[in-house]
Amino acid sequence: MVSAEILASIADTLEARREASPQSSYVASLFHKGEDAILKKVAEEAAEVLMASKDGEKLPLVREVADLWFHTMVLLTYHGLRPDDVLAELRRREGISGLDEKASRPKN
Amino acid sequence: MVSAEILASIADTLEARREASPQSSYVASLFHKGEDAILKKVAEEAAEVLMASKDGEKLPLVREVADLWFHTMVLLTYHGLRPDDVLAELRRREGISGLDEKASRPKN
Amino acid sequence: MVSAEILASIADTLEARREASPQSSYVASLFHKGEDAILKKVAEEAAEVLMASKDGEKLPLVREVADLWFHTMVLLTYHGLRPDDVLAELRRREGISGLDEKASRPKN
Amino acid sequence: MVSAEILASIADTLEARREASPQSSYVASLFHKGEDAILKKVAEEAAEVLMASKDGEKLPLVREVADLWFHTMVLLTYHGLRPDDVLAELRRREGISGLDEKASRPKN
Repeated sequence: MVSAEILASIADTLEARREASPQSSYVASLFHKGEDAILKKVAEEAAEVLMASKDGEKLPLVREVADLWFHTMVLLTYHGLRPDDVLAELRRREGISGLDEKASRPKN
Repeated sequence: MVSAEILASIADTLEARREASPQSSYVASLFHKGEDAILKKVAEEAAEVLMASKDGEKLPLVREVADLWFHTMVLLTYHGLRPDDVLAELRRREGISGLDEKASRPKN
Repeated sequence: MVSAEILASIADTLEARREASPQSSYVASLFHKGEDAILKKVAEEAAEVLMASKDGEKLPLVREVADLWFHTMVLLTYHGLRPDDVLAELRRREGISGLDEKASRPKN
Repeated sequence: MVSAEILASIADTLEARREASPQSSYVASLFHKGEDAILKKVAEEAAEVLMASKDGEKLPLVREVADLWFHTMVLLTYHGLRPDDVLAELRRREGISGLDEKASRPKN
């Protein structure tokens, strides 16, 4: 099993790049462009997940899901959050009422 | 730190529910409806991430990112894949060429 | 040729339903739920356009594009706007600099 | 009232550019890149509609809806369809059972 600590490691790197020069890296440039640019990437990667799934090929799908998770981690960093916050939320749900907690949770 | 093994635990549960009766749970029902229903949820949760980010409140954003990751894990399970495949891809990128590998990767 | 005045006719109906009882119709209910509910529908219909296109069947694609345009018109009505505002913008672009105006327009 | 014939006029132009050299225009380049590139633009413009709506400013929202409609017209052209097909579908719905036909239509 791959250790999922890669998520924490990526978060550390993202935080370090948040204040770096926009020219220094793709991620630094994305932070510099701001929230809407990050959100556009999240939407674009979600669309690519849809297309890869419809294409039915597994390796491209894994790559697109990785892109989507990565860009949501950029967004979390932008808001001062960490993957751990998301993992804790997922664990909370499984702990309280199982994976189907969502189904019974009142939707706004 | 929250152990990220929650992802593997969720994947185990998702696999168990894949063949369960559609009436037995939200996830079983979603698998029964099929790929397009899962993809619609992924798109919907991505949209909710965008809206929560624009609203600027952290707790709802964490919940929506958790929803998005959860439904991408449903999609992975649908295709016979696991979160580990995504984590391995993320680690591969960091290993080979750093987080900015994506920037230099030829885009189709 | 179908007269495109259908767009103005739909906009008239949408405006009439904006203040109607939520129980009176699907659209009245959507207005009552508010902006985020309308935006979720726009995102969902955009996703369905993607899936219908990948499926490669024309009739479902036409239906999904109709759903998407319809829900963007609900959004326009929510903001006190009309399809004419969009048509005027499209005509302005074609008038000034041709369809490719967008390409040369500075992107934020 | 703006004549909605602008949609037919745009469709004529899109058809003419479908077979043009990719270098000749933004649209010709998009056709050349193919279906996935067009779908990515549709998804991206839908995301920009969401963000513009949340920002609450009318002029940017009109521009983003125009971008979204424009790129769905590129997609229609790609599939050999016309805006008239969408307008006919919208008129059919209003004729048969009113704007709320969708609410009662069985969803897959």
